[in-house]
Amino acid sequence: MNNIPSVFWLVPAASITALAAAWIFFRNMMKEDEGTVRMREIAGHVRKGAMAYLKQQYKVVTIVFVILAAVFAFMAYVMKVQNPWVPFAFLTGGFFSGLAGFLGMKTATYASARTANAARRGLDSGLRIAFRSGAVMGLVVVGLGLLDIALWFVILNAVYDGEQMALVTITTTMLTFGMGASTQALFARVGGGIYTKAADVGADLVGKVEADIPEDDPRNPATIADNVGDNVGDVAGMGADLYESYCGSILSTAALGATAFAMSGDMQLKAVIAPMLIATVGIFLSLLGILAVKTKEGATMKDLLHSLGNGTNLSAALTAVATFVILYMLKIDNWLGLSFSVLSGLIAGVIIGQATEYYTSHSYKPTRKIAEASVTGSATVIIKGIGTGMISTLIPVLAISAAIMISYLCANGFDMTMSAASVSKGLYGIGIASVGMLSTLGITLATDAYGPIADNAGGNAEMSGLGEEIRHRTDALDALGNTTAATGKGFAIGSAALTALALLASYVEEIKIAMIRAAESGKEFIGAAGAMFNPSDAGITDFMEFFQVNLINPKVIVGCFIGAMAAFLFCGLTMGAVSRAASSMVEEVRRQFREIKGILQGEATPDYGRCVEISTRGAQREMVLPAILAILIPVIVGIVLGVAGVLGLLAGSLATGFTLAVFMANAGGAWDNAKKMVEEGNFGGKGSPCHKATIVGDTVGDPFKDTSGPSLNILIKLMSMVSIVMAGLTVAFI
Amino acid sequence: MNNIPSVFWLVPAASITALAAAWIFFRNMMKEDEGTVRMREIAGHVRKGAMAYLKQQYKVVTIVFVILAAVFAFMAYVMKVQNPWVPFAFLTGGFFSGLAGFLGMKTATYASARTANAARRGLDSGLRIAFRSGAVMGLVVVGLGLLDIALWFVILNAVYDGEQMALVTITTTMLTFGMGASTQALFARVGGGIYTKAADVGADLVGKVEADIPEDDPRNPATIADNVGDNVGDVAGMGADLYESYCGSILSTAALGATAFAMSGDMQLKAVIAPMLIATVGIFLSLLGILAVKTKEGATMKDLLHSLGNGTNLSAALTAVATFVILYMLKIDNWLGLSFSVLSGLIAGVIIGQATEYYTSHSYKPTRKIAEASVTGSATVIIKGIGTGMISTLIPVLAISAAIMISYLCANGFDMTMSAASVSKGLYGIGIASVGMLSTLGITLATDAYGPIADNAGGNAEMSGLGEEIRHRTDALDALGNTTAATGKGFAIGSAALTALALLASYVEEIKIAMIRAAESGKEFIGAAGAMFNPSDAGITDFMEFFQVNLINPKVIVGCFIGAMAAFLFCGLTMGAVSRAASSMVEEVRRQFREIKGILQGEATPDYGRCVEISTRGAQREMVLPAILAILIPVIVGIVLGVAGVLGLLAGSLATGFTLAVFMANAGGAWDNAKKMVEEGNFGGKGSPCHKATIVGDTVGDPFKDTSGPSLNILIKLMSMVSIVMAGLTVAFI
Repeated sequence: MNNIPSVFWLVPAASITALAAAWIFFRNMMKEDEGTVRMREIAGHVRKGAMAYLKQQYKVVTIVFVILAAVFAFMAYVMKVQNPWVPFAFLTGGFFSGLAGFLGMKTATYASARTANAARRGLDSGLRIAFRSGAVMGLVVVGLGLLDIALWFVILNAVYDGEQMALVTITTTMLTFGMGASTQALFARVGGGIYTKAADVGADLVGKVEADIPEDDPRNPATIADNVGDNVGDVAGMGADLYESYCGSILSTAALGATAFAMSGDMQLKAVIAPMLIATVGIFLSLLGILAVKTKEGATMKDLLHSLGNGTNLSAALTAVATFVILYMLKIDNWLGLSFSVLSGLIAGVIIGQATEYYTSHSYKPTRKIAEASVTGSATVIIKGIGTGMISTLIPVLAISAAIMISYLCANGFDMTMSAASVSKGLYGIGIASVGMLSTLGITLATDAYGPIADNAGGNAEMSGLGEEIRHRTDALDALGNTTAATGKGFAIGSAALTALALLASYVEEIKIAMIRAAESGKEFIGAAGAMFNPSDAGITDFMEFFQVNLINPKVIVGCFIGAMAAFLFCGLTMGAVSRAASSMVEEVRRQFREIKGILQGEATPDYGRCVEISTRGAQREMVLPAILAILIPVIVGIVLGVAGVLGLLAGSLATGFTLAVFMANAGGAWDNAKKMVEEGNFGGKGSPCHKATIVGDTVGDPFKDTSGPSLNILIKLMSMVSIVMAGLTVAFI
Repeated sequence: MNNIPSVFWLVPAASITALAAAWIFFRNMMKEDEGTVRMREIAGHVRKGAMAYLKQQYKVVTIVFVILAAVFAFMAYVMKVQNPWVPFAFLTGGFFSGLAGFLGMKTATYASARTANAARRGLDSGLRIAFRSGAVMGLVVVGLGLLDIALWFVILNAVYDGEQMALVTITTTMLTFGMGASTQALFARVGGGIYTKAADVGADLVGKVEADIPEDDPRNPATIADNVGDNVGDVAGMGADLYESYCGSILSTAALGATAFAMSGDMQLKAVIAPMLIATVGIFLSLLGILAVKTKEGATMKDLLHSLGNGTNLSAALTAVATFVILYMLKIDNWLGLSFSVLSGLIAGVIIGQATEYYTSHSYKPTRKIAEASVTGSATVIIKGIGTGMISTLIPVLAISAAIMISYLCANGFDMTMSAASVSKGLYGIGIASVGMLSTLGITLATDAYGPIADNAGGNAEMSGLGEEIRHRTDALDALGNTTAATGKGFAIGSAALTALALLASYVEEIKIAMIRAAESGKEFIGAAGAMFNPSDAGITDFMEFFQVNLINPKVIVGCFIGAMAAFLFCGLTMGAVSRAASSMVEEVRRQFREIKGILQGEATPDYGRCVEISTRGAQREMVLPAILAILIPVIVGIVLGVAGVLGLLAGSLATGFTLAVFMANAGGAWDNAKKMVEEGNFGGKGSPCHKATIVGDTVGDPFKDTSGPSLNILIKLMSMVSIVMAGLTVAFI
């Protein structure tokens, strides 16, 4: 292990620091008072529902993991088309991701009543508890992610020490543990997304529209399920999603670095640990940012907004600076260029966040126009929202395109020749840009997870009858989260695209490794011209020519078509799932209103448990088909259309999936805020026909922005991961 | 001209036959009685409005054509980066396309009142007039399209007779006349689509929803504009769209044939005229099919359906058989394989049509479920419709993928080696499959154009007060059109995808020609390894390697991203256009109801002209931005990212555009039929809350299926065409 440089030990140190800080934040939050008996009772209901859901989900996921691990073990030990460590790496990836989700959600469900209670003292007290509890999620995710990476790096280093191409083997093997994280994330995002929106849509359709009772009213039987949904969808689901992006970006960049610098002596090791070190610094700076978020007693809304915004901006800016320092001190080749690669990713993230803000906030024209369209009814609200969402894809696509080109060119010294060496270095630059975007995940995820905690605090306040003023404060906290979350979303979606692209490139590396292994067992590869193809000597562009991965190869085009379709199909299935699960919820709520006398008069307690159960069962049932498809499509394409088809598939799903995800997220966000704008008293205000029209928009937008849209993030990364893990199988079919 | 084989003269003969038959059908229709004074008057209003619109549109288009022709002339004569014939070919393409739209629409506007009047005698009389009038459009489109192709082939043959590579130069030059047709189609589809839906949505929102008066009620000021819209959008717009697909498929296949068989002596000429001959036979068989559509007096609805279906199926089946015969008699290499290529395209078209029928007809589960979702309100109707539309992309994408692979492999003798020769032959197979799908356009377009004629006849009957029974008959004729149109739509969208793919391949040929021309003027091309690249000796796969058009080239990936985004942006702009134009219409109708006393009592005549004017102005204003974007995007990408970027752009827009188009068309169709299902008395029938919920779905679906979705067809073809025409410019920047 003497080949590991001492600076590497900062990596596990950072992850342990993150976990320790999370533990302290958790303990401090638990010391707070949970409020009145009623508040504790409601928080208990939500906590119980959330944990029941998570238990149920982990059951399904465990079955899937056992099956997949068996398949990988078969491929590794019987078919010998895979590295023997893969099944274990896969399992730890899944386990740590699940653990992060569990801890984050547990914290969130303990924090909501305490936030509501603290909000009775003032806005700032509420903010501190909610935000620090959100930070638990952020820190647990980055801490566990980096811990898993560091552990495997140490283990595999010991195993492969001194072997030829050790670092390439190590990094490509580690990459497959991302498959465990992806699979876990898929179920968490899709299942959680269906759960939360089935409950939300169901609660709104009967409660708000039919029975005319406000949001979070305790008379609504689906209201607990709705609050549970915020936790399982927005906390656990999002945490697992970003855990996966975080690990995926670091691992794929390490793998690309091992190849790009394979011939550069000790530069190779530096290239492999550089992404880990950037993440390490990101953790320390995130922690700094989190601690910077504090306000004086009696702070105004504007103070709070500044405080929260300053925390994230501070972390991001310092990370940008720190990257220059780290890469310089590492004495890595072209450190300046690589630093600019990271910078291009960060800037793209900021631009996407700003564009999201512009298209979804009702301070700007697009959303105001949607609210205005409510004058002619719900149909025009929908048409306008879809149109706006589609147009809003322009800036994010241009920003990510610019980041791709700039990070590529900065990393290879503006070399456009497309020689194998320059391509590898350029791709490493794209990877490291995605690491840069995700390095401050500790704090950006904190601002994200803070939102549902504040939302739940509001629910708790409403159901406990804490009164108008407290509810106003929790609403303000919630609105605050929505505003700062735009930047976080920009980074999440932008980094998913860059990570997926890095994974696409890593796929070629995995194919190379699989071919070398197959060649060692005597398999021969004959090129188009009839010449022997030696994978060991070949650069990345030689593989492109060998597999004819160009755009007049019909296999590539067909792959592209299927990739584009997969994104739509996946969204369609999750939309359908929400509508089916929401229908069951609507029927149940109507049944309770009809059969349990006195609910609407507040004289009888609704059966909250039934609704929680319906959402849980609906989500479990509905998440299976999309999940299976996401795993099977790349396998089938790999077997039928080979490497060319898989690369077409990944490119098609990446381009279409990213654009579709931006469209759905922004349309959904814009509808939500158009409704809020009407609720603030415009176009007739609450209860007016315009309000009803915007509620339709908001209801349609719910699965857009919280189920289908975010699930696409997982889809594009998971399909790449599956392809990577199945590379050996694909090669066996050549 | 002795090098043109005598069999070629069948091509102009067929086109003249088609035009003559169209003339006869037109004369016969004109001999029919146009009905009562009121009927003539209303038909006159519609005709006047339609012609006024077309005149306005042609004004805008003329300006665009003058500018573009000047640009092309500059490129050809000053910059010398383009063939000198291009500006002229461009202009004739545009002129003939415009002429076809004009003639088809003129016929349609004369036919509607006559159809209504004939329907007073019986269903079958109505069918004959409407269908034969629709056939005028179909025959004019194929007649003029093939005439233009034949003319240019003869002219260019005389010019380049005996030169080296004459056929390659001729076919690649002819291909650019498709650019004229594309540009014309863009404005016709986008402008017409915005017009028709602005009027329709505007008329429905105020008329049906607010004032509670039925469709096509003469008291509704927007009703004439609505009927005009059917003509300008569904007749003229669709005609121009398919004119472009028809010419594009024949021309790109001819260009691919000239390259694929460049070394095969007289086989090359056969390969070039084979697509023209398949189209020729298609014209004769379409005519046969059109004449076969007749029914006995007193025919039932079922008889009519059979009659119409038989006509199209007969033509398609006979064309499949005839293809085997033609290719066999031409003694073209691998005639059997190429015949199977055509067959695979036809079968894919049928499958896409069947899938469309399944997902949009309320005889099947998906649409019934959407209608069922109306029980929980309009939001669930929208969610369910969007989900269904997205899922419905599965089968069309798989069908088109299978057609691509099969037509490619059949045409090159199942050669998977990707050698340049085998790729060229395979691509020719894909092209010829698209020609097969479009060869019976004469009759499929007749069934399509028949729909709006029957729809207008219904409008005329309603406004003239012809009574319930006649209106029932025209409704039946309209419904009949919707059913048979599903197959037509399958062919239209499937062939657009295959044509776009053939155009993508032709783009590489154009680049080759441009590079050869540049090399002749002394330009040198240096490959990645530093070796000289000689475009004259290079096969299509060599160009892929020279330009590094593979999927790890960031330029290709960025192109893909921009292509996917362009499809969404284009849809978003057209959706926004419809909503803006519809808003003006709503305001105008409300104003008239308010200011002109006695309209709703039927005592005063509304100001129809104002509404027609608003739609016209709205469409003209709104079509400019999307049109400019569609033309500029490929030019900018070509200059910034080069050939690799353009091919990425085309592949991305093709895969995403096709999938998005299927999604939008099917979601729109399903909403339409879900509403009809409720109107037939299900879930409470007309006027019930469920009916109101499905009306929202239908209104949202209007721009989906009639504006944005169909416009995507044009977008993907036009971007390819622009790239082709700009190839010389792109090469100048290398």
